[in-house]
Amino acid sequence: MLLMAESINGTRKQVAEAIAARDTEFITTLALDQVNAGAGLLDVNGGVAGGNEVEDLLWLIDVVMAATDMLLMVDSANPEALEAGVQAIIKKGGKVPFINSISGEQPRIDAVLPLIEKYKCPVVGLCLSDEGIPATAEDRFAVAKQLHDLCTGAGLPSEDLWIDPLVMAVSADSSAGVVTIETLKLIKERLPVRTTGGLSNISFGLPNRPLLNRTYVAMCMGVGIDGAVLDVRNKQMMAMIKAAEALRSEDQFCGRYLKAHRAGILE
Amino acid sequence: MLLMAESINGTRKQVAEAIAARDTEFITTLALDQVNAGAGLLDVNGGVAGGNEVEDLLWLIDVVMAATDMLLMVDSANPEALEAGVQAIIKKGGKVPFINSISGEQPRIDAVLPLIEKYKCPVVGLCLSDEGIPATAEDRFAVAKQLHDLCTGAGLPSEDLWIDPLVMAVSADSSAGVVTIETLKLIKERLPVRTTGGLSNISFGLPNRPLLNRTYVAMCMGVGIDGAVLDVRNKQMMAMIKAAEALRSEDQFCGRYLKAHRAGILE
Repeated sequence: MLLMAESINGTRKQVAEAIAARDTEFITTLALDQVNAGAGLLDVNGGVAGGNEVEDLLWLIDVVMAATDMLLMVDSANPEALEAGVQAIIKKGGKVPFINSISGEQPRIDAVLPLIEKYKCPVVGLCLSDEGIPATAEDRFAVAKQLHDLCTGAGLPSEDLWIDPLVMAVSADSSAGVVTIETLKLIKERLPVRTTGGLSNISFGLPNRPLLNRTYVAMCMGVGIDGAVLDVRNKQMMAMIKAAEALRSEDQFCGRYLKAHRAGILE
Repeated sequence: MLLMAESINGTRKQVAEAIAARDTEFITTLALDQVNAGAGLLDVNGGVAGGNEVEDLLWLIDVVMAATDMLLMVDSANPEALEAGVQAIIKKGGKVPFINSISGEQPRIDAVLPLIEKYKCPVVGLCLSDEGIPATAEDRFAVAKQLHDLCTGAGLPSEDLWIDPLVMAVSADSSAGVVTIETLKLIKERLPVRTTGGLSNISFGLPNRPLLNRTYVAMCMGVGIDGAVLDVRNKQMMAMIKAAEALRSEDQFCGRYLKAHRAGILE
């Protein structure tokens, strides 16, 4: 399970303030906390209302790379910022980063596919088209198939495409959780890509969101999801993921589960 | 999700003592606690070492039926006890009970299939043959298919056959959890039966078994399991099941989830 740590994101108030103030210590701590909590990569998003996204992102990348050599994921709605971030990381000798994200929207394909072709960045692919988020699993799968064909056509190995079937709130549409799980099943059956998701939207508008979020992560892990975008500092979520990894044979002799137990971090 | 409450079972020490002492109050409390905790049916197993199983089971059924009109599941390795239990429940005007269980073992088929044909009892079917528990999902599925053909041939509606793919300990075989999930997927794809399981074996030999057990229940609910045999008095398990029911659209407008939240019983 690839844990994509989501917290270095300029849309979060504290992070936006840290970016505006060039608060190196805050960002360094946030990066290291996520690494120590078990992140598999760090998402870095410099998008702050009123900021200069390219400059802000490059500053964030500088700070994070000074703190850790962990794999990064450059996250932006702005293609110029994506390319500047990818170039900066490679120039500094970092691992080729993930890009977050491509989708089935034509303008996004036009902007991001050339970066994938040029840098061979692993990429998150959203099941979203010019018409929005498809209502059915088959229609979301069709976007996944299109992204698979485009990315592999651009020379990306299929296992470097991480499809996000997208999750809506069950409070607004009670079938939202089922559609995403059905989409995951179709992708796992039919495409050699990997799968991920920002699953916490599922609980929007309901009480005890952490319970719903970790339950949904376990349900998606049962179906075979390969990664998730989440707050790795949530201890109950991480305990459940460690358990699920042992239960789906991703943890030889349950070694990491037992280590986590001995460290007292399973709840 | 059908919650098959497991606790009235003579193999448990306290229950065995209560049966031996004909402790009506203990059994009544145990039955009502499970009903109040959200059971969908009550398993009743009177097997006590050195006891008279038919007499013990009939006493248990008397006590439980005096306490509640909830659906029962007659649970015994002894076919004579199964039939005596089923007859007693029907004679007292109770709902036709579940039988726990049939399997692909020939002596068990010979003993239990006639009861299914005669009483049309819904039944748990174990993926177990004369050669033991098959190692692969396809071979477990083959037992499920055999049981489907036998039970529907005996006049049972397919949705009244609840296949248990069987769960072994991941501590002994790290692929144990995966095999069961793969078996569930095959059954859901190919047979019109329902699925259930006594999932807690999965955690045998590991620390923090409740964490592993509830995580595995959520993973199996992601794949579509329809029921589980469990201790419904475990609050964290029940909170997670309530969440998973809302997440897989079995709880209209999340009504039961919200009610449980307001009652303060989600953890």
